Amino acid sequence: MTTVDEVSRPSRLAEPDEAISAEELQLAARNHGIPLEALRYDLTPAGLHYLLIHYDIPDLDPAGHTLRVDGAVARPLTLDLADLRARPRVTHRVTLECAGNGRALLHPRPVSQPWLVEAVGNAEWTGTPLAPLLREAGLDADAVDVVFTGADHGVERGVEQDYQRALPVADALREEVLLAYEMNGAPLLPQHGAPLRLIVPGWYGMAHVKWLRSISVLTEPFTGYQNAVAYRLRQDAGDPGVPVTRIEPRALVRPPGFPDFMSRTRVLRPGPCTLDGRAWSGHAPVVAVEVTTDGGATWAPATLDEPTGGEFAWRRWRYEWDARPGRYVLSARATDASGRTQPVEQPWNRGGFANNVVQRVEVAVIST
Amino acid sequence: MTTVDEVSRPSRLAEPDEAISAEELQLAARNHGIPLEALRYDLTPAGLHYLLIHYDIPDLDPAGHTLRVDGAVARPLTLDLADLRARPRVTHRVTLECAGNGRALLHPRPVSQPWLVEAVGNAEWTGTPLAPLLREAGLDADAVDVVFTGADHGVERGVEQDYQRALPVADALREEVLLAYEMNGAPLLPQHGAPLRLIVPGWYGMAHVKWLRSISVLTEPFTGYQNAVAYRLRQDAGDPGVPVTRIEPRALVRPPGFPDFMSRTRVLRPGPCTLDGRAWSGHAPVVAVEVTTDGGATWAPATLDEPTGGEFAWRRWRYEWDARPGRYVLSARATDASGRTQPVEQPWNRGGFANNVVQRVEVAVIST
Repeated sequence: MTTVDEVSRPSRLAEPDEAISAEELQLAARNHGIPLEALRYDLTPAGLHYLLIHYDIPDLDPAGHTLRVDGAVARPLTLDLADLRARPRVTHRVTLECAGNGRALLHPRPVSQPWLVEAVGNAEWTGTPLAPLLREAGLDADAVDVVFTGADHGVERGVEQDYQRALPVADALREEVLLAYEMNGAPLLPQHGAPLRLIVPGWYGMAHVKWLRSISVLTEPFTGYQNAVAYRLRQDAGDPGVPVTRIEPRALVRPPGFPDFMSRTRVLRPGPCTLDGRAWSGHAPVVAVEVTTDGGATWAPATLDEPTGGEFAWRRWRYEWDARPGRYVLSARATDASGRTQPVEQPWNRGGFANNVVQRVEVAVIST
Repeated sequence: MTTVDEVSRPSRLAEPDEAISAEELQLAARNHGIPLEALRYDLTPAGLHYLLIHYDIPDLDPAGHTLRVDGAVARPLTLDLADLRARPRVTHRVTLECAGNGRALLHPRPVSQPWLVEAVGNAEWTGTPLAPLLREAGLDADAVDVVFTGADHGVERGVEQDYQRALPVADALREEVLLAYEMNGAPLLPQHGAPLRLIVPGWYGMAHVKWLRSISVLTEPFTGYQNAVAYRLRQDAGDPGVPVTRIEPRALVRPPGFPDFMSRTRVLRPGPCTLDGRAWSGHAPVVAVEVTTDGGATWAPATLDEPTGGEFAWRRWRYEWDARPGRYVLSARATDASGRTQPVEQPWNRGGFANNVVQRVEVAVIST
């Protein structure tokens, strides 16, 4: 008898000397990060925003697509896209980051989508706020969680499922949470959740359910796979862990100069060089970015550009560097208004989530 | 003294037991393939088309961008985008494939961008034909090669360079070769060569120079890196090799059913299943596709849909399969009108180019 257990194995950590497996490469070939030079764009262009798709991009017809709102509500609702577009329309500029960003740099390495540092993007999401819709449906007084179900279907660690994630009621009612149907002023692309997705500003990407088809209100905590099993911070397999929620602060350096094709090491000619990049946090606005050009021995403050998109969008930083011949390792680290700052030693957990250790950019300033 | 040689090492083959390196993963995180379920779209949507960018996406201002035509011509020309848009406008539907597609499946594995099978896309490219422009410039009678230079700059195997590729004059004068400024009806995206790129229908991707800024006619064969060193079919490092040119025939199966997240193995319930996919060749139209559901023991003909886009666009095929419980390996193989067909054993060369061994799709038809 053939069963899903044959094709779907438990999660595991890589052996200390184990390089990237064929399965990890297969994921890397389909899910991609932002090419780091694209940190130059405040708004990430279509196709350069990071993507993490658990199963397949589903084949949905926008004309027939509906959103069902039900469960512990007084008035269940069914809306099509015209209904949603007829509701109040708002746009938020939001930085999305995959909760697994940085995973492939961890020791030991959790075996999953092997991100380095590039699983991020910043886009304008247009749609209608979720909270008024929930209030129209009438949440029961004892509502606890709101479950968002996408149309993408697959198997994960032996569990066949539609992709589903729940938010606590208080988070679902935050005014900036959106049912989004446009990205950067155009209809959503298939890979970004067309025709409808959830946007939860400040949270890691797993919360922003794509291909959204239903919202169901529960009076008990949701026990589905993506909340109860997958996206949890735990130190070992037996640890129940805590949920992955908001984005930890991170700064990225836009690599200066030009690259070597294979090593991606940067080559730069000597002289004054403005280093720049982006910094963000889902907990609170970024208030400081520091830069090191000596691999972390010393840090100096960068200047922050004016915010361009509210508290959930990344912010540009700049640092003037006098580049002299030699080899360098550049890093930047962000601190937010909640006091969180990026660590220089890896924060490790078994899923490889919310890992915001500082990036290292290798640069050769050449004398010829 | 710091030099480019420190950051840029010679090409190499992986050791027999060597898994994917950090450098290969770094390339895979930025250059991505088509997610195979997107083979459902005849025209590949923005952001799902494969991308291979040797260096960085350059930062170009379309308003100030010009194209220079010079070298062995009677009348050198400089054109801006308005000049090019004022010329005759044509649209071709063209399948582009990276010459390195399939490289990471080779034994031994050439260490470079580690493609599996997904480095392909099919798009509509709009622009103006190149040949009339070359005739207006007036090619010298002894012209041999036409060199196309992009604005992307980097180091490769120790050679600092702008990306440059030459075409023999006869190929540059083919009527279907385009200077393209639109993809799928929209201005080129930055990562696809904005504001201007070359399209050479039938050739592997390396010929379709992105971010095109100059065209120079030579009376001697071009000896630049990408033609003379990089894109050549050779059996060992000392072999001068032959140039990589046109796309070898290939068919891909759109994986049926739904995936396991990690292994990407497909899960399917028993019953009739229409398998489908796409097939293409740069040498001649695809005339036949065969399918195996038993790992290559037996092959049966697929049916071909009517062509949708001329001889350089992929063509859809279909095959009716009665899926019964068990484990299967599905493959398809294409044959073109020139008599070329896909091999079931790997065609190997040191760069891992033009490798069109058949894809293998693992499927579990589950009984529950």
